Amino acid sequence: MKVVLIGAGNLATHFGRALSDGGHEIVQVFSRTMEAAETLAKAIGGSPINDLSLLCSDADIYVVALKDSVVKELLPAICRGREKRLFIHTSGSLPMNVFCGYAEQYGVCYPLQTFSKFRNVDFQHVPCFIEGTSEHVLSTLKDLMSSVSHCVEMMPSDRRRKLHLAAVFACNFTNHCYTLAENILKRENLPFDLLLPLIDETARKVHGTSPHLAQTGPAVRYDENIIDGHLALLEDDVDSHKVYEAMTESIFILHKSSYEADKMVTTPDLI
Amino acid sequence: MKVVLIGAGNLATHFGRALSDGGHEIVQVFSRTMEAAETLAKAIGGSPINDLSLLCSDADIYVVALKDSVVKELLPAICRGREKRLFIHTSGSLPMNVFCGYAEQYGVCYPLQTFSKFRNVDFQHVPCFIEGTSEHVLSTLKDLMSSVSHCVEMMPSDRRRKLHLAAVFACNFTNHCYTLAENILKRENLPFDLLLPLIDETARKVHGTSPHLAQTGPAVRYDENIIDGHLALLEDDVDSHKVYEAMTESIFILHKSSYEADKMVTTPDLI
Repeated sequence: MKVVLIGAGNLATHFGRALSDGGHEIVQVFSRTMEAAETLAKAIGGSPINDLSLLCSDADIYVVALKDSVVKELLPAICRGREKRLFIHTSGSLPMNVFCGYAEQYGVCYPLQTFSKFRNVDFQHVPCFIEGTSEHVLSTLKDLMSSVSHCVEMMPSDRRRKLHLAAVFACNFTNHCYTLAENILKRENLPFDLLLPLIDETARKVHGTSPHLAQTGPAVRYDENIIDGHLALLEDDVDSHKVYEAMTESIFILHKSSYEADKMVTTPDLI
Repeated sequence: MKVVLIGAGNLATHFGRALSDGGHEIVQVFSRTMEAAETLAKAIGGSPINDLSLLCSDADIYVVALKDSVVKELLPAICRGREKRLFIHTSGSLPMNVFCGYAEQYGVCYPLQTFSKFRNVDFQHVPCFIEGTSEHVLSTLKDLMSSVSHCVEMMPSDRRRKLHLAAVFACNFTNHCYTLAENILKRENLPFDLLLPLIDETARKVHGTSPHLAQTGPAVRYDENIIDGHLALLEDDVDSHKVYEAMTESIFILHKSSYEADKMVTTPDLI
């Protein structure tokens, strides 16, 4: 397909590369800054542009990969004069009908992954969730996405929003836990790498086991001595102190019933 | 070495197995319940006991792998009559001098990993942190631990406590983020497995990159529309709502300065 890529951020970069590798022709790359558009166009093909009035009108699909707040702002300029074309966005949270009134054929392709420019991601293993206004659009998106990923599923906007919310917990909040751990180690001049075997095992453990069953640590067994000691260590770090309290309380609330029932038998010993 | 293992929980199980595999002789396994002592003794050798008065007095080392609160309670009975023997505990948070007054030669071996009975862990890759009352004790512990792990480092109690605190963030809180994500998906009848590629990539990303730089998501770019939408979705889940607010605030505070400086250039687009 002839693809116009609107956006040159992390997701646009990885998605654009996957489409290009999948045999599609990138005809244009739009970014607000010419530098970003040029960098990406150089890597995946297409003409770089930083002015939406230069957008071509004969592409097969227009992929809008921008921040949610920017999508709404730019949609009129993106769609105007191209109402019969096919448009998609790539957001977890925006409903499909954000295009309503601007285009006739539209849909969503949401790749569920965390993308950073400095990391290569094997797009074939990224689960992609599609939605479309008609059977025809859905079938087109299914074909398009199957050329870049082994895992393509249909998902309506309201469920996709909740999947995105779950992803924020599983990825963004998890990574922030790593960051707070790193900050604690930094103050002791200890390298973050010490935690990597633990981080890896924590992630591996939930392959095939519910994280609820995998929970360990002082909060799940409500070891008050350790918890109080940790809070005292965080006395000068108000922010981490707050997160520690919120997480510990949440773990305890969620595991309380099983803790009380099985105190002697299944309570995990460690960390 | 002739080892007495006091405890039969998750850590005792994995540590005991590693010692047995490393060529050491487990002579006794103590647990409060005979069933737990027998199960572990069957797997790694030694006589199962559930009465500390039956503890032998001629082992080379007594490994105390119990919950912190229980250690203090049982230490008098464990050490009495064996004051000249070598004792260690395996806790991240307890200071070494918890043995003071009960024994003469003692130390700590803290394996930094999350252990569950249902999971095999390659102990050779578990970083182990040792501490001892004398050069002689340290050298004995270094030899012992080198027979089970490639990564053995000396670390005093005050630093070990902070390492343990960092581990609580990197492992226990991370796993709880997975659990809250799982709960959101459950309500939509979506399988947790959808998140595994994301969870794996989030963990892989911090190999070689600071998690601070790897942060993505609505909180780091302070996308208020998405954040407000997510909080509305969690309206009926007070607990997850609180965690979402605490984590989002913490991410924003920590990244605020870099966000404001680089708004147009480096802000991650997604998730």
